[in-house]
Amino acid sequence: MMNEFEEFLQRQCRLLKHSEVSEAMEYSLMGKGKRLRPQLLFAVMEGYGLVAKDGFMAAGALEMMHTYSLIHDDLPAMDNDDYRRGRKTCHKQFNEATAILAGDGLLTQAFALAAESSADPMKALKIVKELASAGGAEGMILGQIKDLEAENSAAVTLEQLKEVHLYKTGCLFTAPLVMGAILAGQDAAISQWRRIGALMGLAFQIQDDILDVTKSSKELGKSASDLDNKKSTYVTILGLGQAQDAMTEVYRQTRDAIRQMDMNTQQLIAILDAMEFRQY
Amino acid sequence: MMNEFEEFLQRQCRLLKHSEVSEAMEYSLMGKGKRLRPQLLFAVMEGYGLVAKDGFMAAGALEMMHTYSLIHDDLPAMDNDDYRRGRKTCHKQFNEATAILAGDGLLTQAFALAAESSADPMKALKIVKELASAGGAEGMILGQIKDLEAENSAAVTLEQLKEVHLYKTGCLFTAPLVMGAILAGQDAAISQWRRIGALMGLAFQIQDDILDVTKSSKELGKSASDLDNKKSTYVTILGLGQAQDAMTEVYRQTRDAIRQMDMNTQQLIAILDAMEFRQY
Repeated sequence: MMNEFEEFLQRQCRLLKHSEVSEAMEYSLMGKGKRLRPQLLFAVMEGYGLVAKDGFMAAGALEMMHTYSLIHDDLPAMDNDDYRRGRKTCHKQFNEATAILAGDGLLTQAFALAAESSADPMKALKIVKELASAGGAEGMILGQIKDLEAENSAAVTLEQLKEVHLYKTGCLFTAPLVMGAILAGQDAAISQWRRIGALMGLAFQIQDDILDVTKSSKELGKSASDLDNKKSTYVTILGLGQAQDAMTEVYRQTRDAIRQMDMNTQQLIAILDAMEFRQY
Repeated sequence: MMNEFEEFLQRQCRLLKHSEVSEAMEYSLMGKGKRLRPQLLFAVMEGYGLVAKDGFMAAGALEMMHTYSLIHDDLPAMDNDDYRRGRKTCHKQFNEATAILAGDGLLTQAFALAAESSADPMKALKIVKELASAGGAEGMILGQIKDLEAENSAAVTLEQLKEVHLYKTGCLFTAPLVMGAILAGQDAAISQWRRIGALMGLAFQIQDDILDVTKSSKELGKSASDLDNKKSTYVTILGLGQAQDAMTEVYRQTRDAIRQMDMNTQQLIAILDAMEFRQY
């Protein structure tokens, strides 16, 4: 089924009039991603008895929104990254202007797909609104600016770090869960899904910080003293051991919260298990 | 009424959680703009007997989309402009990262407003779709990349130039006209409005090229030989006299097309008159 979704994404890119922008959009969108947000959406939908394929438009919207954020975050004025997922970043493969436009194009196209996400106009509209609030200046973008501010601040507290990630990562983990509930007509469950999404985003982010360090020492042969030069993370604030304990605890809370949902949670728990034991 | 709309835009910015991004969004959105796209929307709505105020959400969406495109176009990797409308560009007033995020934030927020543009979910959804197609990789963004390509090309033909502006300017002139028809339930007239929007965008753009030259000579004291250093425009390709004739002809065609619409066209014609005789 995830293969079909890849083909769907590819087709969405190829439907656009060809230009350097559409090429750059496709280059970044079709890079090997984990498609975690689409997977979460499909799991909620199937847990509620829907067919995953009916969520391809919403899932495509989420993946386009996620990809645009990566393209813009990688720009020289932001994180200035040359590589992502083992290939050149968009502005390195093309150029900066094209990368800015490709991000803008994916963000805009995300809403075109969201508007087609359901035959029921009320549901499609709710999905558009969820996408806008999750990705906007009170969601992911707020997290991004708070992250940049934290980088330039001397002492970052654990509370600040949590806030950054609640917005930067949490909102786009929450959106697929909420969208699944919208498509299933389970609006009463949305607030519970928001809590689960926030927990899941937090667990994922603590783990990212841990993997950054364990990867560094094992794979890159860096010493632990490199930590001193890095920006504040759960590991720099808590230390590796406590960060690992915190991660395990948040994953446990997430699992508990999912099990309380009135649906078949098997698939969602399986994704969470795979997340917890990922090595990259 | 336009004052009320300014207050509406201001309020939309202030509703957002305060951050450097929301500040930058407000800075750019509230700069003195002509609000031409909102004016066009209101004129179509009132021509069809609707109240302009019921179009504030759609108009706000258009103005946010327009403003984001200016912020990103002004970035160093694009046109690298320091000033816009007599004040510093967003990346000069704040910084590049904030300007990228402010553009992203306005683009995202445009869709949040579009989703609230009508109490009728079918109409709101149509407005979301029109905004996405006008602004996307088959609309304004396609025009932008074609413009960048034309800058790097030795000989630009008149046809190429027309194509650039059909997408870059025309799509966002067409959108308010189409949105007015959608809100008025006049979907049968949409294809005519698309033709009018394309003509209007073309007239506006030829005029921009003319004003660039006449302003240069009169106000900046530049000589006409500066033209040689500039990128291809209607004036460099046609010469000033023929460009002025072309502009007058396209404005005439636009007026004729508007007069054929089944509505009160007085207000729209008045806007067109003001456009044709603008000096900046």
